[in-house]
Amino acid sequence: MKLICYFAKKTDSENMIRANDILRKKIYIIIFRSDTRAGQFFDVVLLVLILLSILSVFLESVGSIRERFYQTIHILEWIFTILFTVEYFLRIYASHKPLRYIFSFYGIVDLIAFIPTYLSLFFIGTQYLVVVRAFRLLRVFRILKLTQFLYEGNILRKALRASLYKIVMFLSSVITLVTIIGTLMYIIEGENSGFTSIPMSIYWAIVTITTVGYGDISPQSPLGQMLASILMVIGYGIIAVPTGIVSVEMSRATEEAKAKCPDCSAALHSERDRFCHNCGFQIKN
Amino acid sequence: MKLICYFAKKTDSENMIRANDILRKKIYIIIFRSDTRAGQFFDVVLLVLILLSILSVFLESVGSIRERFYQTIHILEWIFTILFTVEYFLRIYASHKPLRYIFSFYGIVDLIAFIPTYLSLFFIGTQYLVVVRAFRLLRVFRILKLTQFLYEGNILRKALRASLYKIVMFLSSVITLVTIIGTLMYIIEGENSGFTSIPMSIYWAIVTITTVGYGDISPQSPLGQMLASILMVIGYGIIAVPTGIVSVEMSRATEEAKAKCPDCSAALHSERDRFCHNCGFQIKN
Amino acid sequence: MKLICYFAKKTDSENMIRANDILRKKIYIIIFRSDTRAGQFFDVVLLVLILLSILSVFLESVGSIRERFYQTIHILEWIFTILFTVEYFLRIYASHKPLRYIFSFYGIVDLIAFIPTYLSLFFIGTQYLVVVRAFRLLRVFRILKLTQFLYEGNILRKALRASLYKIVMFLSSVITLVTIIGTLMYIIEGENSGFTSIPMSIYWAIVTITTVGYGDISPQSPLGQMLASILMVIGYGIIAVPTGIVSVEMSRATEEAKAKCPDCSAALHSERDRFCHNCGFQIKN
Amino acid sequence: MKLICYFAKKTDSENMIRANDILRKKIYIIIFRSDTRAGQFFDVVLLVLILLSILSVFLESVGSIRERFYQTIHILEWIFTILFTVEYFLRIYASHKPLRYIFSFYGIVDLIAFIPTYLSLFFIGTQYLVVVRAFRLLRVFRILKLTQFLYEGNILRKALRASLYKIVMFLSSVITLVTIIGTLMYIIEGENSGFTSIPMSIYWAIVTITTVGYGDISPQSPLGQMLASILMVIGYGIIAVPTGIVSVEMSRATEEAKAKCPDCSAALHSERDRFCHNCGFQIKN
Repeated sequence: MKLICYFAKKTDSENMIRANDILRKKIYIIIFRSDTRAGQFFDVVLLVLILLSILSVFLESVGSIRERFYQTIHILEWIFTILFTVEYFLRIYASHKPLRYIFSFYGIVDLIAFIPTYLSLFFIGTQYLVVVRAFRLLRVFRILKLTQFLYEGNILRKALRASLYKIVMFLSSVITLVTIIGTLMYIIEGENSGFTSIPMSIYWAIVTITTVGYGDISPQSPLGQMLASILMVIGYGIIAVPTGIVSVEMSRATEEAKAKCPDCSAALHSERDRFCHNCGFQIKN
Repeated sequence: MKLICYFAKKTDSENMIRANDILRKKIYIIIFRSDTRAGQFFDVVLLVLILLSILSVFLESVGSIRERFYQTIHILEWIFTILFTVEYFLRIYASHKPLRYIFSFYGIVDLIAFIPTYLSLFFIGTQYLVVVRAFRLLRVFRILKLTQFLYEGNILRKALRASLYKIVMFLSSVITLVTIIGTLMYIIEGENSGFTSIPMSIYWAIVTITTVGYGDISPQSPLGQMLASILMVIGYGIIAVPTGIVSVEMSRATEEAKAKCPDCSAALHSERDRFCHNCGFQIKN
Repeated sequence: MKLICYFAKKTDSENMIRANDILRKKIYIIIFRSDTRAGQFFDVVLLVLILLSILSVFLESVGSIRERFYQTIHILEWIFTILFTVEYFLRIYASHKPLRYIFSFYGIVDLIAFIPTYLSLFFIGTQYLVVVRAFRLLRVFRILKLTQFLYEGNILRKALRASLYKIVMFLSSVITLVTIIGTLMYIIEGENSGFTSIPMSIYWAIVTITTVGYGDISPQSPLGQMLASILMVIGYGIIAVPTGIVSVEMSRATEEAKAKCPDCSAALHSERDRFCHNCGFQIKN
Repeated sequence: MKLICYFAKKTDSENMIRANDILRKKIYIIIFRSDTRAGQFFDVVLLVLILLSILSVFLESVGSIRERFYQTIHILEWIFTILFTVEYFLRIYASHKPLRYIFSFYGIVDLIAFIPTYLSLFFIGTQYLVVVRAFRLLRVFRILKLTQFLYEGNILRKALRASLYKIVMFLSSVITLVTIIGTLMYIIEGENSGFTSIPMSIYWAIVTITTVGYGDISPQSPLGQMLASILMVIGYGIIAVPTGIVSVEMSRATEEAKAKCPDCSAALHSERDRFCHNCGFQIKN
């Protein structure tokens, strides 16, 4: 009763605000959520647009294509930019807490997805920065089974956070090692073999210890090759260390993420277990 | 009694059909199964033929050999093709459900193992496609201890399926990373260092992050080398992530695949255990 | 009472010794410990100085920079050296057991952090040896949460020590393998393909088995490429062995390092558990 | 009493045989065992001789050294060969079951450690084959703590044997993959990019999938680079599979190799436990 009275009392301007509210709600559901037909359609179209816009940046950078299709790519780029600008402001308009969206990870990525094109009017070379649009592709997880990804992502994140200290120690040891060996190689090999400076030698040491091995610089003297061999074997061997660290933490995080029995708190074998395998407590019917 | 009567009543045409049936059965046992002498002999001969036909494709591609033995290789290729064609139609003839065989993985592989040779009469360059015969070699598992391989294959497949979500997340992160860093390198290094376009730079980033490191393109500027070093260390470090994922899932799949005690369902230490190590239940005599 | 009497009886010379003692104590707290404001400030300043001195060595090695800023870098280098010398003698002065400090790992590193600069007055080329200062950066762990790093470092060290035997066996097998295959490649490929001697071929084999692959030497003959392919697949496959070893030991060391229940000695799930999950013993209030 | 009588009855020839027996026993203890002073001394001298003989082969292969020291190295090589020949026949003479020694792994290695030098009198180029002496270095494990190495070696061997089936499946998949992709690259890239034949393309595919990446051949066309990128990512990802396999089996083999409680057969935490941690059974005093 009260509700009807309230509606009856509203003026035209109030009605307009309400219509506005309904519009905002509609836009919100389409843009931010993906549980309706329209929302899913919007997400797919957006992903296709992002992919096309990244592709056009790629093609523009290829010399032969740029020469022939410069005009077309240029126009396309502006169409994408305007669409993304409109989408950005619609997101701000529709969201409940605009500031929170603007300063969220996705908000910032959405902004720098179209800013570079405008900047390219004033500065040269900034147009390639629109490639940060690639980050927008991470939205794809929203369309796919979200919960499963969140769950798996949590395990990954937990394992990585738990092994942070060990990895920092590992990385500092590696950095110290490549600094020392890089300098030694600079002294041993000298500028004639391509080791033109200590930073260059350290770059070579990183290329070697990570087993990348470009071969643009490589030791020529027997002593240098001996030292390089030692560095390679070290690099080949110590890859076991981060792998071991992450394996152990991943195994522990997986164990902890398992559903627990509410009675004896033993980790259940499967989330669909109806009885606890340990104490026989009935979890579900 | 009834059976004999039934046989006695059959006409000549019925007898022919029956003889036909027996032939089909015989062919089926020889071609599809490997538990008889004839079946095993057929499998081994087939594998040798496949290996020889692949070898002849390899040799044909070597310039000096092609010039001298073109005629021989050409004739051999047609002999293999005709044999495989005959085998294919025999398989269709002998199998209980021909359509099921035709559209199975092995059925399709068997077909495209001889089709390219016929196509090469009309089109140029298709003759090398017969190398898909390599897939036929997977039949080798049928000759070896089949059950053990099926069992192990199941564990592998289970572990890979269970880690699918994590691996998809991992791969999308890697792809996003190489896109961003590839573009940055294109801006930093430019076309003079071989980074002629963004796709080329992304190709370089993949070569680097996977620690392959051909060295056909490599950064020349200090800033580019610094970024490349970071990419290498990331690539070297994150290989721990898929390894950790697969290790954990493999360990879980192995645990689950173990024989269980029929009484208390504890995983047995060995399939040959006569008593359950947990509850003492007698499993075998 | 006694204490006051004792103090009252002291002569001027004794007072001087006491003042000296207080000074030593103060210096000790500032230099060796990091639990006071002054101590933390000293540690941070020291780390910055070490980083700057390493940077100046790096810059000196770059040809174009050396030519322009030779004078500046030279003066800076001497300032760093004198500061480190003063610090070294202060450490000796302040420490309770000077000899123990001098012959400790850090004592030796601190010494060879400034010795090369003095040596460079008499010998040419020794100035780059100051890069061993990089080892001094390991002090950074003292500023960060020390206990956690010590704890993690212990697990790492324990895992590596426990897998020492297995790793020695693994390395001796790898060394035997590269010796044999290196020699075979020298016989097969010969000097024309760059395999100029057996040590050079062994160097190539190490470059290959560790999957570094510079490409400065690579097999040219079909037989050599076949042998190289086998070596690569071996190298690619056996990296699993040290990884498996370290994973298992790391997992065991992590397990053993867990807090134990004082009553039933079961490994606790977390150090913050108040009750033992196994026997219910109350560990903390 | 009886013994003395027996000795008294022996003739001169019998005495000779006995003296011979004692000599054989002495030689056996020195050569085959390492629990006496003389035995250990013999083992160390032998290892040094093997190392020196390998070193001399290495040095002979270096052009500049061969020219100057040809005579010296040649004489040294013959000295080593004669010493190893004498040692080989002493081993046959001293061993209880000569045939078993001759056809054992070490017996064959010992033989081919000196045969090539004699062959080099008749054939050219065989002298480098003496490098198989490297295998003799595996005797080093006999001098070091033997039992521990045998124990660890057993765990490694057990883990590798248990994962044999999985590794065979893995390797056959990899071989099928490089065959298919190698052929595709031969069709796509052609002879101009260095992919001169299918075997050469397969060699390139192996170089790529194992992340070695020499760069002597590398794709030039966009399509080829795209296919190569896919191959790299596959190679980078699937290294997790053998690692996971070996980790799991290594963990299981370690678990099984633990000492068991004789009462309840629970795996003990340490071999030095005096009481079973599970049932309290007293294992040692």
